[in-house]
Amino acid sequence: MRTVEWDYQKNQLRMIDQRLLPAEFEIAVFDTYDDVANAINTMVVRGAPAIGAAAGFGLALAAFESKAKTAEDLRQDLEEASGVLKKARPTAVNLAWALKRILRRTADVHGSADDMRQAVLTEAQRIADEDVEINKRMAKHGAELIDDGDTVIHHCNTGALATVDWGTALGVIRMAHEQGKNIHVLVDETRPRLQGARLTAWELQQYGVPFDIISDNAAGSFLFKGEAQKVFFGADRVAANGDVANKIGSYMLALAANDNNVPVYSVVPTSTVDLELDNGELIPIEEREPQEVLALNLMGKAVTPEGVSARNPAFDITPNRLIAGIVTEVGVIRPPYLENLRKAVDSAQD
Amino acid sequence: MRTVEWDYQKNQLRMIDQRLLPAEFEIAVFDTYDDVANAINTMVVRGAPAIGAAAGFGLALAAFESKAKTAEDLRQDLEEASGVLKKARPTAVNLAWALKRILRRTADVHGSADDMRQAVLTEAQRIADEDVEINKRMAKHGAELIDDGDTVIHHCNTGALATVDWGTALGVIRMAHEQGKNIHVLVDETRPRLQGARLTAWELQQYGVPFDIISDNAAGSFLFKGEAQKVFFGADRVAANGDVANKIGSYMLALAANDNNVPVYSVVPTSTVDLELDNGELIPIEEREPQEVLALNLMGKAVTPEGVSARNPAFDITPNRLIAGIVTEVGVIRPPYLENLRKAVDSAQD
Repeated sequence: MRTVEWDYQKNQLRMIDQRLLPAEFEIAVFDTYDDVANAINTMVVRGAPAIGAAAGFGLALAAFESKAKTAEDLRQDLEEASGVLKKARPTAVNLAWALKRILRRTADVHGSADDMRQAVLTEAQRIADEDVEINKRMAKHGAELIDDGDTVIHHCNTGALATVDWGTALGVIRMAHEQGKNIHVLVDETRPRLQGARLTAWELQQYGVPFDIISDNAAGSFLFKGEAQKVFFGADRVAANGDVANKIGSYMLALAANDNNVPVYSVVPTSTVDLELDNGELIPIEEREPQEVLALNLMGKAVTPEGVSARNPAFDITPNRLIAGIVTEVGVIRPPYLENLRKAVDSAQD
Repeated sequence: MRTVEWDYQKNQLRMIDQRLLPAEFEIAVFDTYDDVANAINTMVVRGAPAIGAAAGFGLALAAFESKAKTAEDLRQDLEEASGVLKKARPTAVNLAWALKRILRRTADVHGSADDMRQAVLTEAQRIADEDVEINKRMAKHGAELIDDGDTVIHHCNTGALATVDWGTALGVIRMAHEQGKNIHVLVDETRPRLQGARLTAWELQQYGVPFDIISDNAAGSFLFKGEAQKVFFGADRVAANGDVANKIGSYMLALAANDNNVPVYSVVPTSTVDLELDNGELIPIEEREPQEVLALNLMGKAVTPEGVSARNPAFDITPNRLIAGIVTEVGVIRPPYLENLRKAVDSAQD
């Protein structure tokens, strides 16, 4: 099944509960947009493209929940639901992008409230379907950057679980593997939520791609020793100048790669590019619960002393100077990013 | 009590079992040098100066274990025990340094086997006592580098637990706090064994120094935002040119600090400087069990899928160009390190 999927028989949203993987594979079912917002916030679903699709279907739930009799009244309810969904997580722009796209689509509906309900669901489904299609195009462009024999370092999870299906950066790696290239992946475990050790490892195992898990802080040592040739990660938002907001740790990984002349690629659909923000410092960075850092048992024993505190920024900014290329569905974008990202977004909308 | 301590009533070595902290405070007792070697290898005791002292006392146990009737026969047994102890961990030079110093001392003994037994214990005790003394001198030199209001990022554990008492880099931080400076510490949790989240947090809590625990991969984000002014860590071995082998992750931390013009200081006794190695690439780097990376429960749930593998280098090399100063007991050593480290080692031996 897809990571995010609409059930047309029951008009419900079904999502893989990513908090439980790989120990348990469970499908969570949603009837209300409020529950979807909560699922995004608590990371039942995560990954910028996946939460974009989830928010889209969340808006569809809001449409069916609403008692509005007219399209106009329904539109007001949708605006309200959109505000709630948008607040669930601040950094990934796909969330806001999907909501905006659907609300814009409803402006074209001149029929009944039910016509609008149908239009919302149709557009949400279109976003989900496009995501899979776009990912495969990115994967083909990106796979050309991977050579036979490469060891690739990958951060966080950017696979099928981070999207509706297939994946962004991990989709590139999967494509290179399916093309018959002999590759090896060093999987950053990705503290604090361990998306690498849990989700990426689980996906790579299924695809049959050889890999080793490493502590995030060990990536530099492998780069220093010449044991990795490429770095790939996704992004939650890319500013107009090519600065990349991505999972915490991406910046330090990119620094280590650059210090050893290893290229760093960020793989994103053009919907992740936010041309309205001039640079990365304008991207809002979510700081999550300290408990995510502290609530960790090492071999069954409590790790931290009682009463301690933690800081937990969920994302960081990798400056454009550290990024060798941004892989999108319309090709690999190279510097100067300010000019070339704008062109890419324009050509994707054609 | 000290982290590593000789019991003169029972002729036994007593060490705090650091694997159990902070959940449990237990003293492990040792009667044989083989058990001490095993304790060093399994990290009952860790931290370069602490394992140097532990190895010294381990050799004292070997002296008392030996049935040799002559000083000459005993010296052969000590050479053998020294070989076993030295192999326990390869990266920290203090281990080899302490063993060599004691064996050299035995060459001056011209009396009985019992005279030599006494000489070995005396020299081991001297190494332990000197460590505490030296740490306090380093702390005073290093504390001058910390300004009132500074936020300091610290990696691994370099406190009283990593030494016989007081600490190296954490000793500097403790001294600055005791001098009344208003400081804050961002404690790298230090995957995979979490010496920061477990041991450094536990020590700082006792000293009353304000701190927050962070994921190692988040340090770059705080440096990028200008929220940290200094980086301090220890070292397991410093090459003649000032390249620093330290706990995995130090290199990436140093890169992030340098990218934001934040100075990085390595705090080490001159016994950690290995003038025989021209540069860091010659330092042997220990790769430990994959299980240390994989055996981790997140909130009680297994994290990694079954059957996965991991790579686990325990140390990395921070090139000298990233180190603003090396704090020793004879002062803060600045570049050019090749010249100035040699002078420092010479002056320490005077």
